[in-house]
Amino acid sequence: MGLDPDIDKVSIQKGESAASSFLTFNQRVIDNTHDLAVAYKLNTAFYEALGADGWNVMADTIQYIRSKDESILIITDAKRGDIGNTCYQYACAFFDSLGADAITLSPYMGRDSVAPFLEWKSKWSIILAITSNPSAVDFELQTTEDNTPLYQHVVHTSRTWGDINNTMYVVGATKIEALKEVRKIVPQHFLLVPGVGTQGGSLEEVCMHGLNKDKSGLLINASRSIIYAGTAHDIRKEAKELVGKMRVFP
Amino acid sequence: MGLDPDIDKVSIQKGESAASSFLTFNQRVIDNTHDLAVAYKLNTAFYEALGADGWNVMADTIQYIRSKDESILIITDAKRGDIGNTCYQYACAFFDSLGADAITLSPYMGRDSVAPFLEWKSKWSIILAITSNPSAVDFELQTTEDNTPLYQHVVHTSRTWGDINNTMYVVGATKIEALKEVRKIVPQHFLLVPGVGTQGGSLEEVCMHGLNKDKSGLLINASRSIIYAGTAHDIRKEAKELVGKMRVFP
Repeated sequence: MGLDPDIDKVSIQKGESAASSFLTFNQRVIDNTHDLAVAYKLNTAFYEALGADGWNVMADTIQYIRSKDESILIITDAKRGDIGNTCYQYACAFFDSLGADAITLSPYMGRDSVAPFLEWKSKWSIILAITSNPSAVDFELQTTEDNTPLYQHVVHTSRTWGDINNTMYVVGATKIEALKEVRKIVPQHFLLVPGVGTQGGSLEEVCMHGLNKDKSGLLINASRSIIYAGTAHDIRKEAKELVGKMRVFP
Repeated sequence: MGLDPDIDKVSIQKGESAASSFLTFNQRVIDNTHDLAVAYKLNTAFYEALGADGWNVMADTIQYIRSKDESILIITDAKRGDIGNTCYQYACAFFDSLGADAITLSPYMGRDSVAPFLEWKSKWSIILAITSNPSAVDFELQTTEDNTPLYQHVVHTSRTWGDINNTMYVVGATKIEALKEVRKIVPQHFLLVPGVGTQGGSLEEVCMHGLNKDKSGLLINASRSIIYAGTAHDIRKEAKELVGKMRVFP
């Protein structure tokens, strides 16, 4: 479940700060979904738009999720990526200071941009492979010298940096052919799949081609289609419907 | 000048918070270099490691720089990159909320990860081309289908998304051959060049091959070699020496 509170969509109560409205908004979503979701994904951009206050909302939201259920996986969708000593600082920020379980990472700069995160025990690095957006075609789908598109080269190269217990890949639900290819390269890794819902990806196709041989290995994310569904009742109904559709796949 | 205060290197005074020590550290660097530097670059990771407090230090540092000299370019080295609606939020965070002039961006996800930032007038998008770190070889140097390495394909493809007044490229000082190639593709764009100093890049070679035909077009960054030089006097001396070496190139 994506927790992406948008300043243009979250209603700010009179006399209340945007930060406090964001937290109330998130708490309502969490209250109505924490028994349905296996993971929450916080998109850092929506919080950073509020500056330091937004960073506090992120911390408070993570604490609130933990208070409801210690075992829910908390992903910071931060898409960081830098040289080694800088990534070490990001790992401190997201794993130690915020207490998240996982972070999304952009692989452009290579192994240096992932390796420092893997030093943290029981934490996850989620590397961008093929994303759900239209311009994924610009570079991710570019053919490289081993005759495979860049995203396959990324998955192939990075699959041994960590292992199936600390590395996942982002694969957009709108790119089913690519999902099949990624599954061939990393049959046992978990995949984080955004793009179901507002972005138009098919849940059925994602399950059909993304589940691994243990009928597991998928984290399917929905954000806007659920969190902006309307009343607390509507949010729960949308979330339940999505979970129901997933349960069809054993 | 890179402002990257590292918790392991900045001395935290007794009774003082890390955030307040970071700000004091930055102010001392700024006091002793603002008449020498044309730009300050804040590496967001080092601030995020302190959570919300770090975000406030970033904001206070930017305000302090502005109070010394309105015209100094302020770069947030954030290496963000995401889908369109998320990048819009990042642009709000860095350009509006923090008031930075420029942000570094990772191009992996393609045009969507840059275009929203270009909507802000008088702000700069600085796209990663070829970075200074060893593992740039993993993907940035991979040959693509037009027979050029990925970084060249990135520069070639993205050079018309904006123009020379709102787009720059990151080219590591440790990659001189690549710098020459980037200059061929974008003869007039500004290049942000980190990697001189601690990382071992040669200032002379960068100037020789990076300056454009107007003998301009380079922003050469040094961080660790100056900010950790020692006393205020040492910092100024290091910065002056670097500027002196640059002035040899007309």
